[in-house]
Amino acid sequence: MKIGYLGPPGTFTEEALLRTYTFPQDEAVPYASIPDVIEAVDRGEVERGIVAIENSIEGSVNVTLDVLAFDSEAKVIGEVIYPIRHNLLARSGLALVDIDTVISQPHATAQCRKYLAAHLSGAKIIAANSTAEAAQIVCTHPGNVAAIGTRIAAEIYGLEILAENIEDFQDNQTRFAILGKEVPPRTGFDKTSIICFIYQDRPGMLLQILQEFAYRYINLTKVESRPAKRSLGEYIFFIDMEGHIQDKVVDEAIKCVVCKIDRVKFLGSYPRFKVAK
Amino acid sequence: MKIGYLGPPGTFTEEALLRTYTFPQDEAVPYASIPDVIEAVDRGEVERGIVAIENSIEGSVNVTLDVLAFDSEAKVIGEVIYPIRHNLLARSGLALVDIDTVISQPHATAQCRKYLAAHLSGAKIIAANSTAEAAQIVCTHPGNVAAIGTRIAAEIYGLEILAENIEDFQDNQTRFAILGKEVPPRTGFDKTSIICFIYQDRPGMLLQILQEFAYRYINLTKVESRPAKRSLGEYIFFIDMEGHIQDKVVDEAIKCVVCKIDRVKFLGSYPRFKVAK
Repeated sequence: MKIGYLGPPGTFTEEALLRTYTFPQDEAVPYASIPDVIEAVDRGEVERGIVAIENSIEGSVNVTLDVLAFDSEAKVIGEVIYPIRHNLLARSGLALVDIDTVISQPHATAQCRKYLAAHLSGAKIIAANSTAEAAQIVCTHPGNVAAIGTRIAAEIYGLEILAENIEDFQDNQTRFAILGKEVPPRTGFDKTSIICFIYQDRPGMLLQILQEFAYRYINLTKVESRPAKRSLGEYIFFIDMEGHIQDKVVDEAIKCVVCKIDRVKFLGSYPRFKVAK
Repeated sequence: MKIGYLGPPGTFTEEALLRTYTFPQDEAVPYASIPDVIEAVDRGEVERGIVAIENSIEGSVNVTLDVLAFDSEAKVIGEVIYPIRHNLLARSGLALVDIDTVISQPHATAQCRKYLAAHLSGAKIIAANSTAEAAQIVCTHPGNVAAIGTRIAAEIYGLEILAENIEDFQDNQTRFAILGKEVPPRTGFDKTSIICFIYQDRPGMLLQILQEFAYRYINLTKVESRPAKRSLGEYIFFIDMEGHIQDKVVDEAIKCVVCKIDRVKFLGSYPRFKVAK
């Protein structure tokens, strides 16, 4: 099976994919951006896509939510939760004291703010499109530069790990969505994701939506607002709940929400991620 | 009065500040990052700070929310809403067909995705820390590069505007928070911002918070979840409402929320932004 992911090789997405989801016969296909991965699923170029959807520190990955809401018919068919560990990577022979420039994706840089302030406070911070791209740049760069990136990127680009686990917060985890086109059958340990579009500014609308779930004892695992991309103050809401669309109460609750608001988009029902060990 | 903002000169924040908030006697002081602006307010190095808090397309500016929630005692004392217009900037003499590389802050690049796909589909996309930094790079870069940035950056760095208003969505507006240390008096056209910390996973807790406001006919202008930075599935909620903490119903509602949850942080009461013209 072909599985699209955010490349180049060495990204956190690839690491999460290789360590949790793929089988030996699968082929991981790198794409240049998250929208490209989702489009590849829509076009049928790959059977599956894996995209970061939420990080325990940074919050939602906006581009993923927005493409799923506005530009795609892909369904969420599974989820993977993977711990994020940041490492400081440099060419062999460089030591921490030599480093005067740090290159990384701005989110990774932000997640290591305290480490950088403590150990590399004078260093120049340069942005890259991904941590893997940063590692790629560092491996051929003649200067005293380091990248923030994955262990797998260190292996791929032949870099030394100058410092490991440099992230400010422990429990830095990312939830990835596995995308496809179908709705997997109910397993009894499932989650359902919907998007509620509320275009008129009716006070209390979110309250009324939440009541439909509370009334049926459906536990919501996430309520997240995103702009409706129309004007400030208009929002759409991503709601994740326990249960499967084949569960009668889930189906009923969503039908009652559909009656109340402008539009509900069903993003999928899928097995909840089970933590290994 | 000294007002801190995200530099270098030519950022959207500077443009919004100069066009809406400053008086001739004020001094705008550039800082390298949003956390630096907020810290400068906390330390009293500047009397005011201006930071982007929310964009109508991209959503909340996570770093602003996180620093206000976890690392600062600064208060929101005002707000400014300013339209964002993206422009393609290049050295004089270059035409659109010449451009093979586009440099910008990744959010700006994301906001011009459709324009770039239509007009510069083969171009390499390079990340910068801000649109102003991108303009700064482009003005001395020997290659066929363009930046996505402000009109003010074109003036500062002597660049030509190859294309204007290239953003994908109209109504691209950013709301900026003005930070200080005091609570401005009630004007009768105010907003109040709080942060609700809910550490235990108690189903329906958000519903119960929202009910306190609905019961008192207080209109919420924003409900936004952010990770609690502890583990996936734990959230804090930013709530903006109409009214001032000196309004009896607002004060009462917040006191009732305080009784129900782990912690409520009062971010400020301030005059709502009045759109000019």
